[in-house]
Amino acid sequence: MSPKHEHLKKKIREIKNYPTAGISFKDITPLLEDKQSFREAVEGIANFFKEKQVDKIVGIESRGFLFASSVAYLLNTGVVMVRKKDKLPSQKILREHSLEYGNGSLEMHTDSVVPGEKIVVIDDVLATGGTAEAAIKLTEQLGGQIVGTGFLIELPLGGREKLKQYSIYSLIQY
Amino acid sequence: MSPKHEHLKKKIREIKNYPTAGISFKDITPLLEDKQSFREAVEGIANFFKEKQVDKIVGIESRGFLFASSVAYLLNTGVVMVRKKDKLPSQKILREHSLEYGNGSLEMHTDSVVPGEKIVVIDDVLATGGTAEAAIKLTEQLGGQIVGTGFLIELPLGGREKLKQYSIYSLIQY
Repeated sequence: MSPKHEHLKKKIREIKNYPTAGISFKDITPLLEDKQSFREAVEGIANFFKEKQVDKIVGIESRGFLFASSVAYLLNTGVVMVRKKDKLPSQKILREHSLEYGNGSLEMHTDSVVPGEKIVVIDDVLATGGTAEAAIKLTEQLGGQIVGTGFLIELPLGGREKLKQYSIYSLIQY
Repeated sequence: MSPKHEHLKKKIREIKNYPTAGISFKDITPLLEDKQSFREAVEGIANFFKEKQVDKIVGIESRGFLFASSVAYLLNTGVVMVRKKDKLPSQKILREHSLEYGNGSLEMHTDSVVPGEKIVVIDDVLATGGTAEAAIKLTEQLGGQIVGTGFLIELPLGGREKLKQYSIYSLIQY
């Protein structure tokens, strides 16, 4: 929650009335496509968790994968996929959740997390916190220990309150 | 096409009759979740392209994002999302293509690639080559120069023949 990365906002494109009227969507594609900004973002998120002895990063499909995998690489951990319903091929658990606009279901393979492993959940945007909470609960159901959650962008839509019992890091706040 | 990474096959889980009868699906989740294997895979793909002065990595939704972003980080490039239809929020181009099982449509933002940029297209699996070809054509339509394509896994389903005019790297071959 420092203003250090505030300048990255100029690489976030705001799209009015998307996906529905009244929403100003934060499009992260210009940031991803700019090598310095992408690098700063990934290193900024990884840096926050580097002393935590993280075992695995849980990434939320699909934009979350972009940050989860590079943060996992930097922290020298494995990366676990949390995917939308019916995408994972093996034995799995499911959790339903609310989204900023609508509802969703997320799944995780039952062998993706070993009890006691230290886990960081990563997504691109923290909005209501429903998606991240679902990924956290799936992780905890398998015995994983959540050491924190990391996001590129944090929107003032209740996510920080919903996840208040966890350590939350966001690079850019609106 | 060297057997150097052949040992990573033990981290690929084969799932019989998924997603349809007669298909033996290659599940990459155990590889992703094992930190040494994940690291070896990402570094192996990046290493192949490191002398090519790549400007951007194009990653194909959604498992492709996991390799595209970490390879982009290693090569110090930006990463471009190619997404399924109706997922990208800004001005875009679309390409329809065939899949190993079924059909699909992929989209790319029109400002994601600048004419003359050197691009590597990354996905998790090369099967028929239809998906990668669509991402290549989208890139070329915007004036990008394809310097190659990289995959974790290559299946003998015609992809190498379909993409024969391009430089193809796969870490593991079946």
